[in-house]
Amino acid sequence: VEGSQHFTVLTIDTMNPTVKNVEYAVRGPIVQRAMQIEKELREGVKKPFTEVIKANIGDAHAMGQQPITFFRQVLALCSYPELLNENMFPEDAKNRARRILQACGGGSVGAYSASQGIDCVRQDVARYIERRDGGVPCDPDNVYLTTGASDGIVTMLKLLVCGEGASRTGVMISIPQYPLYSAALAELGAVQINYYLNEEKCWSMDLSELESSLAEARKHCNPKALCIINPGNPTGQVQSRQCIEDVIRFAAKERLFLMADEVYQDNVYAEGCQFHSFKKVLFELGPEYSDNVELASFHSTSKCYMGECGFRGGYMEVINMDAEVQAQLSKLVSVRLCPPVPGQALMDLVVNSPQPGEPSHITFMKERTATLSLLAEKAKLTEQILNTVPGITCNPVQGAMYSFPNISLPEKSIKEAKALGQAPDMFYCMKLLEETGICLVPGSGFGQKDGTYHFRMTILPPTDKLKILLAKVKEFHQKFTQQYS
Amino acid sequence: VEGSQHFTVLTIDTMNPTVKNVEYAVRGPIVQRAMQIEKELREGVKKPFTEVIKANIGDAHAMGQQPITFFRQVLALCSYPELLNENMFPEDAKNRARRILQACGGGSVGAYSASQGIDCVRQDVARYIERRDGGVPCDPDNVYLTTGASDGIVTMLKLLVCGEGASRTGVMISIPQYPLYSAALAELGAVQINYYLNEEKCWSMDLSELESSLAEARKHCNPKALCIINPGNPTGQVQSRQCIEDVIRFAAKERLFLMADEVYQDNVYAEGCQFHSFKKVLFELGPEYSDNVELASFHSTSKCYMGECGFRGGYMEVINMDAEVQAQLSKLVSVRLCPPVPGQALMDLVVNSPQPGEPSHITFMKERTATLSLLAEKAKLTEQILNTVPGITCNPVQGAMYSFPNISLPEKSIKEAKALGQAPDMFYCMKLLEETGICLVPGSGFGQKDGTYHFRMTILPPTDKLKILLAKVKEFHQKFTQQYS
Repeated sequence: VEGSQHFTVLTIDTMNPTVKNVEYAVRGPIVQRAMQIEKELREGVKKPFTEVIKANIGDAHAMGQQPITFFRQVLALCSYPELLNENMFPEDAKNRARRILQACGGGSVGAYSASQGIDCVRQDVARYIERRDGGVPCDPDNVYLTTGASDGIVTMLKLLVCGEGASRTGVMISIPQYPLYSAALAELGAVQINYYLNEEKCWSMDLSELESSLAEARKHCNPKALCIINPGNPTGQVQSRQCIEDVIRFAAKERLFLMADEVYQDNVYAEGCQFHSFKKVLFELGPEYSDNVELASFHSTSKCYMGECGFRGGYMEVINMDAEVQAQLSKLVSVRLCPPVPGQALMDLVVNSPQPGEPSHITFMKERTATLSLLAEKAKLTEQILNTVPGITCNPVQGAMYSFPNISLPEKSIKEAKALGQAPDMFYCMKLLEETGICLVPGSGFGQKDGTYHFRMTILPPTDKLKILLAKVKEFHQKFTQQYS
Repeated sequence: VEGSQHFTVLTIDTMNPTVKNVEYAVRGPIVQRAMQIEKELREGVKKPFTEVIKANIGDAHAMGQQPITFFRQVLALCSYPELLNENMFPEDAKNRARRILQACGGGSVGAYSASQGIDCVRQDVARYIERRDGGVPCDPDNVYLTTGASDGIVTMLKLLVCGEGASRTGVMISIPQYPLYSAALAELGAVQINYYLNEEKCWSMDLSELESSLAEARKHCNPKALCIINPGNPTGQVQSRQCIEDVIRFAAKERLFLMADEVYQDNVYAEGCQFHSFKKVLFELGPEYSDNVELASFHSTSKCYMGECGFRGGYMEVINMDAEVQAQLSKLVSVRLCPPVPGQALMDLVVNSPQPGEPSHITFMKERTATLSLLAEKAKLTEQILNTVPGITCNPVQGAMYSFPNISLPEKSIKEAKALGQAPDMFYCMKLLEETGICLVPGSGFGQKDGTYHFRMTILPPTDKLKILLAKVKEFHQKFTQQYS
């Protein structure tokens, strides 16, 4: 070092360029500014508001949703098994805890589990899937517990993506999309193939759009997989059974590996809508499909009525996966040793919740129903109020936890944004944040048709806050439109 | 599909070839066979033994080590805050739980945390590092909480690795190594640069070996980083202060990014040995080094006296990282949302354990000391008994949780193994497993000098079982040697 100049090994120029291409809007610049503003408020800086309301991320507990009592009782028992000797816990909670602990090395959630996940948890997941899908069989050997759904999705993409130039793997994702997909594809160096959801038809999937997007992509890459998020994130739609059938037939015909992100499977609110798992529909189409189409589906403890994001629990099920590839998958997951065991325990409780006759059943059902009903109410409220704003058009929030309204932006504001090098809806959301303390994510972070603008807003804030938030958005939008007209 | 032949998208030929190159011995074929044998035993198959003893993985709780009471009390309180109203928990446990919950969104460990980790946990980590390193300052903004240490290591490698052909990134790793490193490098497509530890000098690092290995690598790749595991895995050595100083000077001179895997920092048993963190030594070398050398160091909740592997807690600290790169790192970790929050809580307890005067202090210290003393005893016992076996030579287990003895294998057994396409020490370990039920990992899974053979054995089984295990290994080795002579 002596005499030599300062030298840095790892710089923006020498680092992995694929990492630089990664973008993740849900925690992007707007959220960072929101955190700064929160700090400024704590330090006494005067603002035209007294608190930041975050509607940028599907983080239910942070928005005041209460955890399910039974789940937390069992988790406490698993963490500190001395509590099994106390009579403050119901017997079914104790039984679940004993069963999980027995399946853990040394009877401790502090031991590593099998890399694929604890055996009895995978068995419970398999039985849950069978019940959910009206008896379609599920082999626990095809179930992999994961560190949230994100981990499973990235792992599957890792197996799929390879090649260079025109033989680079292409992966079809919906636009708007959840930016984990674009981020993972950028990191892996895959080609992102966009297919647009039909905003006019409530964000449904158009077969013709899938076909033309695929045909175009085939000219310059090797499309291998098709990703679907249902119920939709950020778009909140619930795909019809017919649509899912079409997608499966398309994948079979075009020889695409299907990835079904179904983490919002309990979050269905709109009348006439129903969750159909890709697996169930696949099997209903008969052996021609169910013996052939490759499918990975993903679930998580983070959404639905649980909202337990912090535990990073999840699973994926693989169907019709080539045996040799599956052996490679099992090897790959072993390198990270195992998913967090408390998250595995929680996943077990989700798929093996209190049954009628068990002491915790009534409370569990009451809590579950209350949470889901409240979400349904807030979904309706959000749609209704947003649609009263001239210049905002919001599709029904049929499911999931988000609205993704279309916003008309005056030409002048678009010009000003572009002059600043910002996406117009980023400019809009940033102004909204500075003036009202409301934190939303601009549509450009999820992708949207050129010339259209949106924001994603979660429906999670408590009803009273949600009402304030919606009123403020309304007021802001009107003011903004005026200001730039 | 109709009329068409069966077609599989994802096959061993079309999948990502870098994944195929990944190997992970610690959970490899020998462990899979061990699990099969356990199943056979349960099904009543007769074997020359009644149970499988697993000494293949550093999984303390699975081997009967008890969790620290205080940690588990706080985790139970965090999981089910209703327990804060009970008077069965000591006040310091309640205070820790309240502090963690206050730092969580909505007061729930079910909320996502900041991607870099909970603020107050990172602050506690920073203070812990400062105490550990005799006052060398630590900025919480340089601390990233991780999903076990593995996650941090892979994330750092992801930032570092890029390029093709002769400009591909090379990363220096010790041989023997912990196979997470080779697996991650294979997956990222980096060049693995081996440097051999000196078995004759108790697995120390030789400067001349580092120099020649680097010089050779420079001919065909772009070496950027040097990884060190101290205390050593699988080799159990504790590097001297002098050695660490030499390595830092080497990294500075050769412009290498240092990665220090220090997850065994409390696992030091041998007299005269002491843990020196790379960071502390770096700062003691003066600003010429401490202002320039880039370092990432890793810690975890999985080892030391805690052994809480299942929670997947950990942190990394980065030093002298380029500001733009660090912004990229912060973005990259945001894609996975956050490390598991219970693991973050546990990490907090490790770095902020009960203090003198607090109600849990005496019990905590008693438990901590008992665990570490027992490990020290078992380290000694392992070394002593193995060294009584003709044909086995075992370096002192100065630290960590493993012995990595050298085993002499008869020429005839080597030939037989090769005829079966097996590494000779894999052949040996497989036979040991089939005949005695003892599960060890062959040295070939970690790397070793050509023509030498080893196995890795954890010192974790309870003393009585460890004695049986060592006696069986001794008996087996003698029989094996005879059989093939």
